[in-house]
Amino acid sequence: MGGDNGVDVVVSAAVNAVSRYDDIELILVGDQHLLSERLTSHNVLNMDRLHIHHASQQVEMGEPPAQALRMKKDSSMRIAINLLKKGEADAMVSAGNTGALMATGRYVLKTLSGINRPAIMTSIPSLNGHTYMLDLGANVDCKAEHLVQFATMGSVLATAVDEISQPRVGLLNIGQEAIKGNEQVKTANTLLDRSPINYIGYVEGDDIYLGDVDVVVCDGFVGNVVLKTSEGLVKMVSKFARQEFQRSLFSRVTSVLALPALKTLGKRFDPRNYNGASLLGLQGIVIKSHGGADAFAFENAINIARIEAKKDIPRRINSQLGILLKHKRPS
Amino acid sequence: MGGDNGVDVVVSAAVNAVSRYDDIELILVGDQHLLSERLTSHNVLNMDRLHIHHASQQVEMGEPPAQALRMKKDSSMRIAINLLKKGEADAMVSAGNTGALMATGRYVLKTLSGINRPAIMTSIPSLNGHTYMLDLGANVDCKAEHLVQFATMGSVLATAVDEISQPRVGLLNIGQEAIKGNEQVKTANTLLDRSPINYIGYVEGDDIYLGDVDVVVCDGFVGNVVLKTSEGLVKMVSKFARQEFQRSLFSRVTSVLALPALKTLGKRFDPRNYNGASLLGLQGIVIKSHGGADAFAFENAINIARIEAKKDIPRRINSQLGILLKHKRPS
Repeated sequence: MGGDNGVDVVVSAAVNAVSRYDDIELILVGDQHLLSERLTSHNVLNMDRLHIHHASQQVEMGEPPAQALRMKKDSSMRIAINLLKKGEADAMVSAGNTGALMATGRYVLKTLSGINRPAIMTSIPSLNGHTYMLDLGANVDCKAEHLVQFATMGSVLATAVDEISQPRVGLLNIGQEAIKGNEQVKTANTLLDRSPINYIGYVEGDDIYLGDVDVVVCDGFVGNVVLKTSEGLVKMVSKFARQEFQRSLFSRVTSVLALPALKTLGKRFDPRNYNGASLLGLQGIVIKSHGGADAFAFENAINIARIEAKKDIPRRINSQLGILLKHKRPS
Repeated sequence: MGGDNGVDVVVSAAVNAVSRYDDIELILVGDQHLLSERLTSHNVLNMDRLHIHHASQQVEMGEPPAQALRMKKDSSMRIAINLLKKGEADAMVSAGNTGALMATGRYVLKTLSGINRPAIMTSIPSLNGHTYMLDLGANVDCKAEHLVQFATMGSVLATAVDEISQPRVGLLNIGQEAIKGNEQVKTANTLLDRSPINYIGYVEGDDIYLGDVDVVVCDGFVGNVVLKTSEGLVKMVSKFARQEFQRSLFSRVTSVLALPALKTLGKRFDPRNYNGASLLGLQGIVIKSHGGADAFAFENAINIARIEAKKDIPRRINSQLGILLKHKRPS
């Protein structure tokens, strides 16, 4: 059981999650002694839906994925993924080492047929709800066919989770003119134009937030930069706002009055509400929580796993990929 | 004379600029009749520092750069760049077609020795001032050596304009660990480690805004996405803030009280304050204004041209590149 904040955060989140959602059972994988001690310290009401599975090892946050795969066969991460593989769990959530999680997921679970590379996806707030974005860092260099696979997976997930029949899928580019963009983006554009998904063409960076697209597809380098840039910008805006409201006695009084509005505003941008990224394309549901997540944020990641399990996401992606492959054959 | 808003914006900005800065003269290049008519409508005090140069053509906003280069030899854009080439102007500013501006600049002015590709750079607000970022869209695919050239040009410009002796230059990547990133970024990292500039290593998206780096280097695809993403996010935050402050009578009253703070805050993010991107690496100073700039924003672009001319940016980049090339020889 990993993450920057250790076992306490995960145990608290698990206790809260079983109390909030009566349709889940959770298996806490990690040091048995430590976990049962921490569970005892909580006043747990739904103990029958909280289980402990012992693991003697732990993958460290900075550990190279290949080493984790070879040397940490009894790590909490590996055992949790094994439980998924054996059908003893429907989904797994980890706040641990992303590279190791992806490598272990691919090795143990394998990718879905038709998917070369899994992608990391999350939802981010937009003007009228949220936008799904992938890949967020699993694949720094992508070929056109990878981008097409990401688009298909994102479309299936948006359909299943948000119950929209034809999610609008856009390809991130630097201009809406067809001549712009790099080669892989241009080729992916041509392939997506012929695909059965509701492909709306190129979108630009600002469209991510403006609510006119449901799924934004890009390579993992660009996606990761977009996500982190947005985090930095929100931090800067908050800090500037605090400075402005502290400048004078008048503005300090105003800020007290404005507190309800500012709080609601802050909540809309609280990254904890969006914690939990899906490792899409694996034969199983793997959700990555931010390493620095607190119990509230980690509980959100558990809920994403819960929703994806209820919606049976991997099977739906699989059948949609079947349709896509059939669709491609005649051309 | 181009841009989405036509001649009026440019003439107003020029009139204001000569009145604000007594060390500049401006040559308005475009339709002589139209320009003198518009100038007459202003009550111009410094007419001796405002000149008109006739151009019979205009490059359209959507026109392919190659066509503009071949067919628009008497366009305002081409003539202004010719004036620069002949030494009759020290800098040029355009709100026109970016691709055509870059192509014409490269064709007429040529690049500096040691620069394969010019880059587009601008400054963006950060927690403690501003951060320069390049490339913003001139080069969608970059080799490592292009990124190194961008780093050098950005470093020279930050030194000259902000008078900081060793600007901190960072390479945009998706993680600070050396194993992350794509091949060109990793190779550029090795080259920059050996260069004489103050290279601080990899930076991530959030660092752009957090004030711990002066110059952020990336390829034009990533840079353009970062810029547009930020624009979209700021728009969304503003809209949400307006919604929150309109929600109830109480919040509407609060918003009136909070107006001074909100206004100051808005100003810090007003993109008009940051209008004017440098086409760095040409043998001449070419500044690109946003196509949709108003007179206030266009005047900022004129001021950037003014500062770069006073600081003699192309010559300084040239001499710094000389040092860099000498430095590389022994290795």
